[in-house]
Amino acid sequence: MKIEAVDFFYLAMPEITDEADGSQDALLVRVAGGGEVGWGECEASPLVSIAAFICPMSHGVCRPVGAAVLGQRLESPADIARIAAQVAYDSMDLLQAPHTFSGVEMALWDLLGKKTSEPVWRLLGYERCFAKQAYASQLFGDTPQQTLERARLARAAGFVAVKFGWGPIGRADPKSDREQFLAAREGLGREATLLIDAGQIWRDDVDAAAARLPDLESIQALWLEEPFNAGALSAYAALAKRSPKVKLAAGEAAHNTAMAEHMMLYGGIGFVQIDTGRIGGIGPAKAIADAAAARGITFVNHTFTSHLALSASLQPYAGLEGHRLCEYPFSPKTLALAITANHLTPNPVGEVSAPDKPGLGMDVDLSRLKPYLQAVDISVNGQSLYRTPDLIQ
Amino acid sequence: MKIEAVDFFYLAMPEITDEADGSQDALLVRVAGGGEVGWGECEASPLVSIAAFICPMSHGVCRPVGAAVLGQRLESPADIARIAAQVAYDSMDLLQAPHTFSGVEMALWDLLGKKTSEPVWRLLGYERCFAKQAYASQLFGDTPQQTLERARLARAAGFVAVKFGWGPIGRADPKSDREQFLAAREGLGREATLLIDAGQIWRDDVDAAAARLPDLESIQALWLEEPFNAGALSAYAALAKRSPKVKLAAGEAAHNTAMAEHMMLYGGIGFVQIDTGRIGGIGPAKAIADAAAARGITFVNHTFTSHLALSASLQPYAGLEGHRLCEYPFSPKTLALAITANHLTPNPVGEVSAPDKPGLGMDVDLSRLKPYLQAVDISVNGQSLYRTPDLIQ
Repeated sequence: MKIEAVDFFYLAMPEITDEADGSQDALLVRVAGGGEVGWGECEASPLVSIAAFICPMSHGVCRPVGAAVLGQRLESPADIARIAAQVAYDSMDLLQAPHTFSGVEMALWDLLGKKTSEPVWRLLGYERCFAKQAYASQLFGDTPQQTLERARLARAAGFVAVKFGWGPIGRADPKSDREQFLAAREGLGREATLLIDAGQIWRDDVDAAAARLPDLESIQALWLEEPFNAGALSAYAALAKRSPKVKLAAGEAAHNTAMAEHMMLYGGIGFVQIDTGRIGGIGPAKAIADAAAARGITFVNHTFTSHLALSASLQPYAGLEGHRLCEYPFSPKTLALAITANHLTPNPVGEVSAPDKPGLGMDVDLSRLKPYLQAVDISVNGQSLYRTPDLIQ
Repeated sequence: MKIEAVDFFYLAMPEITDEADGSQDALLVRVAGGGEVGWGECEASPLVSIAAFICPMSHGVCRPVGAAVLGQRLESPADIARIAAQVAYDSMDLLQAPHTFSGVEMALWDLLGKKTSEPVWRLLGYERCFAKQAYASQLFGDTPQQTLERARLARAAGFVAVKFGWGPIGRADPKSDREQFLAAREGLGREATLLIDAGQIWRDDVDAAAARLPDLESIQALWLEEPFNAGALSAYAALAKRSPKVKLAAGEAAHNTAMAEHMMLYGGIGFVQIDTGRIGGIGPAKAIADAAAARGITFVNHTFTSHLALSASLQPYAGLEGHRLCEYPFSPKTLALAITANHLTPNPVGEVSAPDKPGLGMDVDLSRLKPYLQAVDISVNGQSLYRTPDLIQ
């Protein structure tokens, strides 16, 4: 089939706060071809990612993403890889391109899966799809008491693994952080897996991060996530050496496979976290899952938004039995839940699996998205380059 | 003073071709404060970079670039660094942000220099500004004969160093490339410095690049630039080991200091090429110049557009006497030349210097830009977020 159309739907909550909650808006992508549609989702900044699909060409290697996608043939996974390579080369000087293409690429897999009646994980070469232990991913409360209550809620909802991130961590002294850590552990009880996400707060300050290690060890945190900014490889390596018990986790910012590989090769991390909505989609994420497995590093998805994004993020490591954890958006905004009619609900032992259905196996529910739709209009010299399509076509 | 306004002017040639010629469009930035204006230029994709300045916030660390710039205090270089750090953190999930901020940051230096009556290189801490050997940077011809003629033209114009890049190189067999290389050397004569730019054509294929090394040695190329894509550090390192005579040059794609540092640390390059219009501006470029000097790697600017961008790209290493080469746009499009009323013309021995004038020392000539101005209009939900300002205000 031919890729006939690519449409974007910018969705947002009525109010956007400065919380580090990425589920407050979304960029949904619909790809049409051969009488079928596929769905994907870009992470993040919807308006900018739309612009990168439709912008005028600047020169030969700064072309809009759309130029390498529209009209292309799509019959097999090799076609997706070919299109991805063309985007990477033709848009090498267009920085936003990988974020834009990530959602498009997901939608290409979804479309191909639907046309061939295969789940994406099978198209990726996996024979089996293993259930993953869902960890409830959420933000720290403003106070330790709030964090304690959120921990109890997650346990009451059946989660045996929970992550707390961002919020006040690193913004005051180590003692304040300790109170948050202790509250999280207290709320979870002794058995649950506890993960801590520092949200890059120490930039590249190894000592500041290391000052928290004794407390992270005492609460038996499995990992410390993103203590530093995404490029601070030597800071990661230095902290990893000082932290034999609490492993480091990072990688969500990777917008190509090289960045994730460098984090594994030079950063000393124990867990590599990949956002299929940023790294260029499912294909690059699968390449990192394979590379992680070969190195003894554990692959984990990075997902804080919809169940469409969650399904996409489960595909790349669905067949890797030993890579057990899955980030599960615990309290996303209503918008994120409205994107799909079906949801990947954890089973009684707190596990989720990539759907055993064609494509990504998620039913996008356009009728529920109308309240969130942002009407975008971009024109150059009076000529409209992009206008939000009607939701129902 | 306060940063009162930031305006963008998207400029383009009437026709944009698929040549790898980045001077076909430009995004000019004007920052106003304290009764003065400063000018900068973003590389590349004007429409997308504008969108990253004005887009609605997605969440706490995916804010528009403008949020961290407008209304800020600007009294000293430390203020520019503080604003840059805030953009880096608050827009960490907005991939295009560094390209957008690069032009803004240049304009902040220009504004600060004008207000303090100091050239930017002095604000950066340099006592002296050393002349650089300008190399005429241009594309390979479609045929060896065309390349030979371009080489002769550059020599006739007084250049003693010339770079050829992109075009047919790597697209056929090594023998075809050899003919291009020989033509370039023949046109230049034996004495001139010759540089070759492969434009990432071999992606990460070390053997394909290595197949060209004997010919590059025989024409005495000083460097081979960007044989691989920007993240292929291990391919760079492998080729560097196989190429004792022809040094590798790379770094133009770096959109933060970490990327450039990784290229120096892990890629085995001899020359690090920084585009101040991509890496986040003049401050980060200066940090890489210092790091390069400390490692015995030579810093070179990457500039293929206007003389405003050229002045900005000269500042970060103006005071480093041993870092002698300067990329000089040899045949840019008329648009690029029209951006400034004054130009950095090489002296009789082919040298250029950063101006010894306040700020960047370039006079932006708005009156000549009208034919190139692209009127952009971006709205969300009927509310205009960006509209191209009038050229003359």
